[in-house]
Amino acid sequence: MNNILIDGEWRPARNPAGSFRAVNPSDGTELPDLYPISSFSDIEEALRAARRDAPVLAKTKPEALAEFLDGCAAGIEARAEELVACAHLETALPKEPRLRSIELPRTTFQLRRAAAAARDRSWCRATIDTKADIRSKYGPLGGPVAVFGPNNFPFAYNSAAGTDFAAAIAAGNPVIAKAHPCHPGTTRIFVEIANDVAARCSLPPATFQLIYHMEPESGTELVGHPLVGASTFTGSRPAGLRLKEAADRAGKPIYIETSSVNPIFLLPGALAERRDRIADEVFASCTLGAGQFCTKPGLIVLIQDREGKAFFDTVRQSFERSPAAILVARSVLAGIRTALEMMTSAGAEIVAGGRAIDTPGFRHENTLLRVSGDVFLKNPKDLQQEAFGPVSLCIFARDSGQIVDIAAALEGNLTGSIYSHTFGQDDEIYEKIAAILRFKVGRFLNDKVPTGVTVTAAMVHGGPYPAAGHPGFTAVGFPAAMLRFAALHGYDHVRHDRLPPELQDKNPTGTMGRLIDGEWTPRDV
Amino acid sequence: MNNILIDGEWRPARNPAGSFRAVNPSDGTELPDLYPISSFSDIEEALRAARRDAPVLAKTKPEALAEFLDGCAAGIEARAEELVACAHLETALPKEPRLRSIELPRTTFQLRRAAAAARDRSWCRATIDTKADIRSKYGPLGGPVAVFGPNNFPFAYNSAAGTDFAAAIAAGNPVIAKAHPCHPGTTRIFVEIANDVAARCSLPPATFQLIYHMEPESGTELVGHPLVGASTFTGSRPAGLRLKEAADRAGKPIYIETSSVNPIFLLPGALAERRDRIADEVFASCTLGAGQFCTKPGLIVLIQDREGKAFFDTVRQSFERSPAAILVARSVLAGIRTALEMMTSAGAEIVAGGRAIDTPGFRHENTLLRVSGDVFLKNPKDLQQEAFGPVSLCIFARDSGQIVDIAAALEGNLTGSIYSHTFGQDDEIYEKIAAILRFKVGRFLNDKVPTGVTVTAAMVHGGPYPAAGHPGFTAVGFPAAMLRFAALHGYDHVRHDRLPPELQDKNPTGTMGRLIDGEWTPRDV
Repeated sequence: MNNILIDGEWRPARNPAGSFRAVNPSDGTELPDLYPISSFSDIEEALRAARRDAPVLAKTKPEALAEFLDGCAAGIEARAEELVACAHLETALPKEPRLRSIELPRTTFQLRRAAAAARDRSWCRATIDTKADIRSKYGPLGGPVAVFGPNNFPFAYNSAAGTDFAAAIAAGNPVIAKAHPCHPGTTRIFVEIANDVAARCSLPPATFQLIYHMEPESGTELVGHPLVGASTFTGSRPAGLRLKEAADRAGKPIYIETSSVNPIFLLPGALAERRDRIADEVFASCTLGAGQFCTKPGLIVLIQDREGKAFFDTVRQSFERSPAAILVARSVLAGIRTALEMMTSAGAEIVAGGRAIDTPGFRHENTLLRVSGDVFLKNPKDLQQEAFGPVSLCIFARDSGQIVDIAAALEGNLTGSIYSHTFGQDDEIYEKIAAILRFKVGRFLNDKVPTGVTVTAAMVHGGPYPAAGHPGFTAVGFPAAMLRFAALHGYDHVRHDRLPPELQDKNPTGTMGRLIDGEWTPRDV
Repeated sequence: MNNILIDGEWRPARNPAGSFRAVNPSDGTELPDLYPISSFSDIEEALRAARRDAPVLAKTKPEALAEFLDGCAAGIEARAEELVACAHLETALPKEPRLRSIELPRTTFQLRRAAAAARDRSWCRATIDTKADIRSKYGPLGGPVAVFGPNNFPFAYNSAAGTDFAAAIAAGNPVIAKAHPCHPGTTRIFVEIANDVAARCSLPPATFQLIYHMEPESGTELVGHPLVGASTFTGSRPAGLRLKEAADRAGKPIYIETSSVNPIFLLPGALAERRDRIADEVFASCTLGAGQFCTKPGLIVLIQDREGKAFFDTVRQSFERSPAAILVARSVLAGIRTALEMMTSAGAEIVAGGRAIDTPGFRHENTLLRVSGDVFLKNPKDLQQEAFGPVSLCIFARDSGQIVDIAAALEGNLTGSIYSHTFGQDDEIYEKIAAILRFKVGRFLNDKVPTGVTVTAAMVHGGPYPAAGHPGFTAVGFPAAMLRFAALHGYDHVRHDRLPPELQDKNPTGTMGRLIDGEWTPRDV
């Protein structure tokens, strides 16, 4: 049985609640390595060690944190082939281009952006009122961030290498990484890399720790524990809501990302102008990565006119003709089945695909459904449940007025797109939809599919509930993603030599921006 | 019966659930005006109107919002005497200096700071990635902010004039103000002022609305309602937690500020050096405003040595000799009784005061309790319940090691202070306490009492649960306080003329800071 990493040491789980093996999704067979399901005593030990080290890490120079994150990126590159092979085995995601040329470089890029943000220090938004001698900045939470990684990104959202890991450490917090049981081997390699690097950077031993798996009750106990700083969870809605409830009850911040149907509105002028190009884009976005993206378009809204029907026929043919890719886990198949049952019970009709494929491995036909606007508006709740996988629902609105009603019936989403005519034919209806959609999504797009989340300071990967738990944060993009793991720290009349360097009179980097007496400036006080 | 203000019109409550009168705390008599307890139909109407107007307000020029807020400040000054007279009648807070010379100017200052922040626009943190054409900024929530004001600040935290009101509007959100039943008349004057000003600024009719009172179930329905944007509540812990649970369940942001004991640690060197001065400061802070401040020091921690005992004797004499001020409400007396029962049951001893005073009006003796560190550590939960009013508990630690244990046993607080020796004698123990206390409080102080919350950009009035609901925000200070009422809005490939002005290539003010391709700058793209 594999060791977990607690307080800097690889050791066996104590009295594990069970064990598990990862599964090769391409043939359904179990992989050889055995991993423990930790009992809460392991988790409590991790919490105590992390709480002990949190103040040490909070006083660690940002340059050391940055060196660690940069070191992780370099270490990942050095073991890239091993990571790609292991992640491919555990998730069946294609080695090329997905794992080797897209997700791995994105992961190292994120780590380096986090390192740069830590070095730059501007993220902490140092604010100084010289007259009142009151100063403030964002600082670490004083307890670990528990990261529950998802199944669909073995690298970029991995709990031991992905965006949450990088953001939490860059902001000066210890991490307790909970591997996703789909890819424990990949996660182990990341932790080995981090562990090698940490030794060189003299970080405290509980800077990051690894638990492979835990029972649901341990998860709720962890996120609501007095010693935890905050938690993140990316995954299914029921599990996310259970964790959110426990964290909320204890008053602990939790950032969940559990479901989003990412509506795309196709306005008549856009379809008249460039129907086939849009059809290709939308189809590709719906089925990219077997639809296993948080930003997959799950709802396509258009008017049931001649252009709309022609668009639909093109997309349907693409769904019908395209081969089914392998899904990352058996549970994805189960989720699709549940979602299809709910949608068809609510009146949607399957027009392409619809069945799991009876071959070795986890596959599901690329599936397109159709429903009228009238029926959608009768049961918008069931018809906007996320079907994680290659499944999308096309809503045929009666007219442009009904499109607006459909927008108004949507819940919170990560993204929302509107395709409109290039030269203004759709502007009137665009304005009406945009005025509603803007407040229902984190990232609002024009003439563009939502898959492909660029890692940039301006990226918003978040949104109103239920897409995320609070609409004021993003999980992607530095430095913004770090603010999820920060407390606002005020210093009132604190003696100068006791202030954190960012709040002392002399600007510690000479370049970081600070708000001094109302002016954003890199100068010293 | 007084009218409520819904959708720009003063009208009677429909089918009210009841009515109430404010009470004069100086003699316990009811004041003549009758106010309705609204049924949910009033609240739902307010929600619908506010949701309709939210996108309009979101597109309103910040200059118009600023003009409105500045107009409110001027209107308040014009009706200052009336406000002071009414608030004094309803709360018994002294006209001078408290109401006229401190709280009223603070309130108008806040409104003007909010106006300046709206005009400046930097608060929205516009971020532009020119290469990827991805842009982001903080924007309004798309639904109203429900503000539940507290009893203790009839002006500065008033739901229709205070910091939450100013911050929510400055960030472009409509407000549904729920008056505190202690001072409905004061709140009505503020709404009259705002209503006069709004007419001149052409703001949409549901920019702010007024409900005087509602039943608890209506409150929970309001904060979790699909149409609400966010809520704030300042008041008692049970009511705050009930609202928080309802809002959390619905995934709606809520900012609660419900209790804080604001510990003060007095280190031996500080007492040896300047014992009497500290005793005067601490006593004054504990009893200022009859102890009815969120930042009143409820816990005083010191070592039981000669200096500690001498300090304690001085403070006790001050408590004993000082007259009891009038409290703002009968409920404050009930809260004190409950808190004293809990603390004495847990082993604390009342050494000064302890009784309600049997005269007309709501008065309670200034009350000091004492407990040993040993006893405190046996039951830290019951012994750190807030007693809102002129009540403080002195904890006598056995030695400096036990002081550290006491710090570790504290819950989240708004503030925490350490008094230490000027020339370093306490530095070793200071470091140990500070390393713990930093993460348990929002505002960390040296050699200073926590009462007196300066309104400055660097102020932090917030903290970890249970002091507040999320440690990353502040309720006081502009522009930071506005971020509680903001969503992070991403724009991906959105056509240039459809972008909000703050994200267009040309800087709309010429001066607002924007993060363009990694550089914080006022230049155009």
